[in-house]
Amino acid sequence: MSADNQLAFALDTFYLLISGALVMWMAAGFAMLEAGLVRAKNTTEILTKNITLYALACLCYLIIGYSLMYGNGGASDYADAADFFFQSVFVATALSIISGAVAERMKLVSFLLFSIILSAVLYPVQGAWSWGGGFLNQWGFVDFAGSGIVHLAGAAAALAGVLILGPRLGKYKDGKAQALPGANMPLAALGTFILWFGWFGFNGGSQLKLSSSADAEAIANVFVNTNSAAAAGTIGALVMTKWLSGKADLTMILNGALAGLVAITAQPVSPSAPLAAVIGAIAGVLVVISIIALDKLKLDDPVGALSVHGVCGLFGLLMVPISDTSASLAVQAAAAATIFVWMFGSSLVIWWLLHKLIGIRVSAEQEYQGADTVDCGIDAYPEFVRGASSR
Amino acid sequence: MSADNQLAFALDTFYLLISGALVMWMAAGFAMLEAGLVRAKNTTEILTKNITLYALACLCYLIIGYSLMYGNGGASDYADAADFFFQSVFVATALSIISGAVAERMKLVSFLLFSIILSAVLYPVQGAWSWGGGFLNQWGFVDFAGSGIVHLAGAAAALAGVLILGPRLGKYKDGKAQALPGANMPLAALGTFILWFGWFGFNGGSQLKLSSSADAEAIANVFVNTNSAAAAGTIGALVMTKWLSGKADLTMILNGALAGLVAITAQPVSPSAPLAAVIGAIAGVLVVISIIALDKLKLDDPVGALSVHGVCGLFGLLMVPISDTSASLAVQAAAAATIFVWMFGSSLVIWWLLHKLIGIRVSAEQEYQGADTVDCGIDAYPEFVRGASSR
Amino acid sequence: MSADNQLAFALDTFYLLISGALVMWMAAGFAMLEAGLVRAKNTTEILTKNITLYALACLCYLIIGYSLMYGNGGASDYADAADFFFQSVFVATALSIISGAVAERMKLVSFLLFSIILSAVLYPVQGAWSWGGGFLNQWGFVDFAGSGIVHLAGAAAALAGVLILGPRLGKYKDGKAQALPGANMPLAALGTFILWFGWFGFNGGSQLKLSSSADAEAIANVFVNTNSAAAAGTIGALVMTKWLSGKADLTMILNGALAGLVAITAQPVSPSAPLAAVIGAIAGVLVVISIIALDKLKLDDPVGALSVHGVCGLFGLLMVPISDTSASLAVQAAAAATIFVWMFGSSLVIWWLLHKLIGIRVSAEQEYQGADTVDCGIDAYPEFVRGASSR
Repeated sequence: MSADNQLAFALDTFYLLISGALVMWMAAGFAMLEAGLVRAKNTTEILTKNITLYALACLCYLIIGYSLMYGNGGASDYADAADFFFQSVFVATALSIISGAVAERMKLVSFLLFSIILSAVLYPVQGAWSWGGGFLNQWGFVDFAGSGIVHLAGAAAALAGVLILGPRLGKYKDGKAQALPGANMPLAALGTFILWFGWFGFNGGSQLKLSSSADAEAIANVFVNTNSAAAAGTIGALVMTKWLSGKADLTMILNGALAGLVAITAQPVSPSAPLAAVIGAIAGVLVVISIIALDKLKLDDPVGALSVHGVCGLFGLLMVPISDTSASLAVQAAAAATIFVWMFGSSLVIWWLLHKLIGIRVSAEQEYQGADTVDCGIDAYPEFVRGASSR
Repeated sequence: MSADNQLAFALDTFYLLISGALVMWMAAGFAMLEAGLVRAKNTTEILTKNITLYALACLCYLIIGYSLMYGNGGASDYADAADFFFQSVFVATALSIISGAVAERMKLVSFLLFSIILSAVLYPVQGAWSWGGGFLNQWGFVDFAGSGIVHLAGAAAALAGVLILGPRLGKYKDGKAQALPGANMPLAALGTFILWFGWFGFNGGSQLKLSSSADAEAIANVFVNTNSAAAAGTIGALVMTKWLSGKADLTMILNGALAGLVAITAQPVSPSAPLAAVIGAIAGVLVVISIIALDKLKLDDPVGALSVHGVCGLFGLLMVPISDTSASLAVQAAAAATIFVWMFGSSLVIWWLLHKLIGIRVSAEQEYQGADTVDCGIDAYPEFVRGASSR
Repeated sequence: MSADNQLAFALDTFYLLISGALVMWMAAGFAMLEAGLVRAKNTTEILTKNITLYALACLCYLIIGYSLMYGNGGASDYADAADFFFQSVFVATALSIISGAVAERMKLVSFLLFSIILSAVLYPVQGAWSWGGGFLNQWGFVDFAGSGIVHLAGAAAALAGVLILGPRLGKYKDGKAQALPGANMPLAALGTFILWFGWFGFNGGSQLKLSSSADAEAIANVFVNTNSAAAAGTIGALVMTKWLSGKADLTMILNGALAGLVAITAQPVSPSAPLAAVIGAIAGVLVVISIIALDKLKLDDPVGALSVHGVCGLFGLLMVPISDTSASLAVQAAAAATIFVWMFGSSLVIWWLLHKLIGIRVSAEQEYQGADTVDCGIDAYPEFVRGASSR
């Protein structure tokens, strides 16, 4: 290789590795977000789920997922290992979405078994259809960093789990949703900030190449648009929740930021910054409406993951044609439907089998006690919460 | 562009984007620092302020602030969008300083309205005078990464707010300052670590260009000096607080680290590492004295932001001529005074208008209840603190 | 310098600086991990130790340690200051290991004095033997990023301290180890995630050069192997703790992740990813066994640091020859023994002198009260834990 080519190879490799490390860091974001939004008695267990799912995702993707999704491919513009690293950390994101939606009532072992299957098979199969060069790619489907391939896919699998699992005890009384407040708001806010920060790697790295001026310009657009959409999503949700409840509900605001991030992920290169902000703002409004609507449907989702990743992921896919003339609304919708049907359907089968074979839900007694005692044997906050958690 | 120029363009763009992402991450640092230092009953609200101010800063700077500060400028050495991104995340830092100083007693809505005005007008106007190439720049004012333009500016706006707002209920009894301990020391320490980490982007990115060996050498100096000043500030405050109180007061030590960071920000390239450490150590001593002095003046600042960012920002500006022969003490002082007068004066007018039009302070009853209940409707730690917060 | 050489210089400098910043960030990881694993009454003090030790390490290494370890050396491939920065942040890691092992019973001042001596002399002396080009290097000792030079070294110094210090009051009753649960599991998990993230800088930066395609390939391998070993360590410890106790003990799982990271650090370039995973998995199993064994020996180590960094550091050194034909098992073992003897022996003398001169352990009354009150005068969680901490 010439000196210039060596430098470009090194720079592109480093860019992918740093981006991948930022996506790995998002695992911490999901862990903190979910730990903040569950009750104290289920905190150790959700932390256990989050670090374990990341580990399982990386290992399963190493053993089988990556080759299933990309064959023996790999560009020569950067180190193969950098590409593998960047792709593998995306799998955990899909799983983190699920752990939030099924929190506070699912057996740890069933969740981990599902995680293995999703990482090794369910996710890579549909990933191969788009990023792997398969039929969705041939259709002209545009999903830059995975509003559909990662976020909608994760939410579809989560929805299947939520349906089989049912709501938490006490969540719906006399047909009305009850508040089961999260135990630790600073953790939830920290998690959101981590995710926002890590998303610069998630979206920014998805250009896959940095070393030409055109690529660099594209990546700079991605950073600005990602940030603008998240900022506008924050404000969209703030206005909406203030208008609906008279209060600035922090959990809604945090989900607004994430909604903006998820929505812009489908195409963060081509919009102008103001358009990115508009997309983010609508997503921020949408997520508040969706969270309220899902509660009316008694789809219990302790962290709002179905709304953030499912509804706003779909919304993001459908917004792509506005700024990207290579995309068509029909293809975006058809591809979204394809991903949803595959992930929802196959997950439903897996959850149902787990349900029949080993059970996926803890007993009512265990749910009352809390997953920390039952599954982990360790309280998250032994000195702050007296005795067995009271709620 | 030649291959070499493309590579340099890409490298410089990536360097600015990563630096900007680290500065964005500082928003999480301020959020955690402030959430740790307020009482439990005001935690959700301070988190809400911190994420919302970041969002507002980005949007207001996008819509008006950036063009006010830099015109249509923009170098061609890197992507314009990268420059915009890097500059825009600085605005939020100035706002975060304010949110800390006015914590635990200001209405959320008033703070957010002030944030919009500061981001869109107050900050960019004075930024245009220096970084935008205006008259402070012509004078030969040196403020590498913003000891004055960001930190002193933010503290001046905060001081105006503190004066109109008055101290928290119960803070001063019989002429003596009462301790109102922060609820969560690990969060405060985490916030400080995040800020220290993010400051490598704040100062490191302010060289604006990496791709020549001279630039790279300069940036490496920035990293070493930034780290050395923060380390020495930590130790300076430790020695001072141990000497004064006999205890190693963690909140003072954390502020010592931040004091060192703020002070070196004015010129982190030219000092030797030992000189940077001396500047940091003095700042660490200074911040302890200043915090005690402001309490004697009954200027209630729950997190010490006026001392950290105002006093040490000014100190940093005045230290520049020691290592940087292009700077003069007279110009540094005059520019600092100019920034202070503009930010303090204009902020005083805005705060006063807000005070007269909608009020900036919650009622005594609401202050007793806590901002979380009043403004957000969500307790930060519903299972750890029983009933309405007791203090 | 030619344009290409300037670009390579800039890229290598930036790579080292970013890597160093990630290692600095690990200081936050240790702080959170340890703050989560101690009881509430010792939390402020462990935070104080962690930020202060980082500051002291940087300053002592600046004043004397670096020149002791590397002479006037320094390659010309990147900025000297970048090399200094990257090397200096490693010192704090060794100290962080110690602060965990001696937590909850050591006097703050004694710990800080020991930190100064270790940073200025003990660590650099042995560092000079290997990374500084001394006799261990001549032997052909391979320790890529410091399984021995940093982790085993830190653990050896910690072991000496633990032996002189003795166990915490109430830790061993009737010959059996008692659980003294950590106060805050989310912090412990956050700390582990921070360390995992920061380790990409710790191991990734230790290639020291990025700008050729061979270097870039090596660094990409480092990222994949570091991640794979940590993931497998997580699962190894999960399986082991589930098998032994029937529960998924989160503290063991977190230590499993760290065990994998420590073990792969000796040689993260040459193994295939599956081999890295096997090494990590064994380390994850090993750490669980070691923690239980050390408790049988009444070596009280509140965070498991001796097992994670000592046992798994040694294990990592001995695994190097499997993938790296330039290393021999005999040399690896002899070098490990040399490092251990030096660090353990010299630390024992220092701890003993401190013990005789000023005392290293707080009184029983103070230990009951908690280090926060005694040393810092500030409770970590004044509103969550009523009165003096109850345990």
